[in-house]
Amino acid sequence: MPELPEPMTALLEALRRLPGVGRRSAERIAFHLLKGPKMDALELARAVERAAQLTPCPECFQLSEGGPCPICRDPARDAAVVCVVETPMDLLAIEKSGEFRGRYHVLGGRIAPLDGVGPEALTIGPLLRRVREQKVSEVILATNPDPDGDGTAMFLTKALEPTGAKVTRLARGISSGALMEQANRGVLSDALRARRAV
Amino acid sequence: MPELPEPMTALLEALRRLPGVGRRSAERIAFHLLKGPKMDALELARAVERAAQLTPCPECFQLSEGGPCPICRDPARDAAVVCVVETPMDLLAIEKSGEFRGRYHVLGGRIAPLDGVGPEALTIGPLLRRVREQKVSEVILATNPDPDGDGTAMFLTKALEPTGAKVTRLARGISSGALMEQANRGVLSDALRARRAV
Repeated sequence: MPELPEPMTALLEALRRLPGVGRRSAERIAFHLLKGPKMDALELARAVERAAQLTPCPECFQLSEGGPCPICRDPARDAAVVCVVETPMDLLAIEKSGEFRGRYHVLGGRIAPLDGVGPEALTIGPLLRRVREQKVSEVILATNPDPDGDGTAMFLTKALEPTGAKVTRLARGISSGALMEQANRGVLSDALRARRAV
Repeated sequence: MPELPEPMTALLEALRRLPGVGRRSAERIAFHLLKGPKMDALELARAVERAAQLTPCPECFQLSEGGPCPICRDPARDAAVVCVVETPMDLLAIEKSGEFRGRYHVLGGRIAPLDGVGPEALTIGPLLRRVREQKVSEVILATNPDPDGDGTAMFLTKALEPTGAKVTRLARGISSGALMEQANRGVLSDALRARRAV
């Protein structure tokens, strides 16, 4: 039986390997890319290729165009305060807040026993070395506020103990702009426990 | 303020242009592609590039690796019966049923006035020429069973009239394996209108 041309099958398979892309969405994306002028397709291929050439910053492991990233090169950023995040996107989110003038450390994920991700898969070794060698005085743990993120923070707290650096976590409570009545139990219990005098 | 490296921004933008991919999924996909070994990324880039080199079969407009597609080249397929589909994926779906031994014609979409897609954007001219020149005796309209697909079928029925070819549509009714109680009004009215003596 005649089938789809092999390059089409290969494209569908490559798309299906992406997170959140099932069979139907792979087909929709492939059809979108291949109908009419192929500009979008070639642009996507080039964009993926170029991005794949990014390498982790040797200091903080943020994706960088080679060598230390702009933040690690910036002498105005406080090297004594390091904010630990799971992914490059998390770094960007904090950076956008404009509130943080220290440096970062990108773990490259979180410890997730159920997914078979152990501490050795993350950049924890380089973090400990950095804290020891560069007189880091405070490490802010900004892992995700969920079970794996909390577990990773607990692991890091223990691992950082011998360095003598102060270890802090981002405050947890109700989100600015959120509706009280929609806050779930976890959020409210965080907010109550961390309540402050006004 | 330091931002994401430019190749990363370009990748996020290219991903967001895909159908069904929003900001969050673009970030998830980009992070998936760029973490750890870049095998998946390079494979995707290559797959997109190779698929972009597919060209429409000059006969039926199915995506092909150059020249007529395997179905149009196959002398065992009945050239007098042409099944008209919207997309290459629709062709594949019918082909998988194993029930059809004629040939196909891929429209490249459907007439969709609300999306600004008129008949001239589809391969209707080549279809009419094909039917006239190749003594096609039957044209089976297999556009989608929805308003735009039905409108396209109506347009084609009129356009094909002067050729003298018999024009048919796929039967509509309840889907094999579906639950009666979940069939909607449109499905049931189709099924009732087309009821057959047993």
